[in-house]
Amino acid sequence: MDVDHHRSRHHRSASSLTMVAHLFGILATILMLVWLLHYREGLDLDSDDARRVFNVHPFLMFFGFIFMAGEAMMAYKTVRADWQVRKFVHLFFHLVAMVLGIVGLHAAFKYHNQVGLTNMFSLHSWIGIGTFTLFCAQWLGGLAVFLPRGSSESKARIAPWHVNGGRALLLMAICTALTGLMEKATSMKLQHDNEAHLINILGLCILLFGISVDFSVSLARYA
Amino acid sequence: MDVDHHRSRHHRSASSLTMVAHLFGILATILMLVWLLHYREGLDLDSDDARRVFNVHPFLMFFGFIFMAGEAMMAYKTVRADWQVRKFVHLFFHLVAMVLGIVGLHAAFKYHNQVGLTNMFSLHSWIGIGTFTLFCAQWLGGLAVFLPRGSSESKARIAPWHVNGGRALLLMAICTALTGLMEKATSMKLQHDNEAHLINILGLCILLFGISVDFSVSLARYA
Repeated sequence: MDVDHHRSRHHRSASSLTMVAHLFGILATILMLVWLLHYREGLDLDSDDARRVFNVHPFLMFFGFIFMAGEAMMAYKTVRADWQVRKFVHLFFHLVAMVLGIVGLHAAFKYHNQVGLTNMFSLHSWIGIGTFTLFCAQWLGGLAVFLPRGSSESKARIAPWHVNGGRALLLMAICTALTGLMEKATSMKLQHDNEAHLINILGLCILLFGISVDFSVSLARYA
Repeated sequence: MDVDHHRSRHHRSASSLTMVAHLFGILATILMLVWLLHYREGLDLDSDDARRVFNVHPFLMFFGFIFMAGEAMMAYKTVRADWQVRKFVHLFFHLVAMVLGIVGLHAAFKYHNQVGLTNMFSLHSWIGIGTFTLFCAQWLGGLAVFLPRGSSESKARIAPWHVNGGRALLLMAICTALTGLMEKATSMKLQHDNEAHLINILGLCILLFGISVDFSVSLARYA
């Protein structure tokens, strides 16, 4: 009885946290667009202005990759639907995240080549490529193990690794986003103006999105 | 039988992961010292050379704060000892982390004041202060709720929040460390030399320490 009481309370908490996660994700997307459209040069993957090409990178890596993947994690754990439906939504959102992530990565490389910068020298790029590669491996592994219907020995053995691996990848993706914002703000020597504060608040929203996704998925496990 | 089989397997995995976490933590500490002693100016909190004062900050924030706190998390979950002993070790290591963290924060402020830089403008500083404040709140809350012997309604209600809050704080601390390294490397305009690579590898080791602590604590829950 007491245990049931706690469980339903944690379940309600997990639902509220999912709402909080949606809100921080949407807020971060809006702040990102304000930054790129108002303070920067706008977004255009095919532009001759290399800066407009670059700006596609932070937008797609957050909205396309991190936000979609976070929603995919929460969809599996917190939506009230048939297990097969949740599994398909989880898989499909992650596929969208992967495709948009590839376009976002392409934008960064295209920008570097346009302005003659070396690729892959910074901590941001090292963690980012590592995260994306492991993400693709996790997606393919998940497909191979969990797509077949029915229960199996291998599903039960791999599930905790899949769950914790996904959470670790979210942590890595958030770290990558924040090091990217940090690199950009430092190299632009922003300090006390509105743009600097906007970037800091954007970074906090991305961090809080990650934490609320993590909380809502973890607490749903208690439900 | 099958479930027991999985549990003991996860328990063994959690122990191996704890070893991996120790290794990455020690490796990161060594790389940090190589960086600060060989490539930078060394460490001295009382120096007239502001750079030597600054260098105390990254060392204590990783070795003193993050490493100690990570060890405290793993000590509670993975050491085979009486519950009261594990609880005390957990509490005490976190106290050490808090004290060394305060000295490490002091070093950053002292450096800024010595060279006339503004405090608290970067994303790194915002996340860092947020993390440290919440860490202190979590420690005091944990003390109030979990120090009294015996089981209670409030302990059961708060435990999942304490556990997930601690994991979120670890995520935040790792993000803070990596943004700090990113800020330093970008402002020094390091790109292709040995120091740049050393900092990147240091950042990766700190990230892998965080992930392996998180995995070892999470998988131990299945054990």
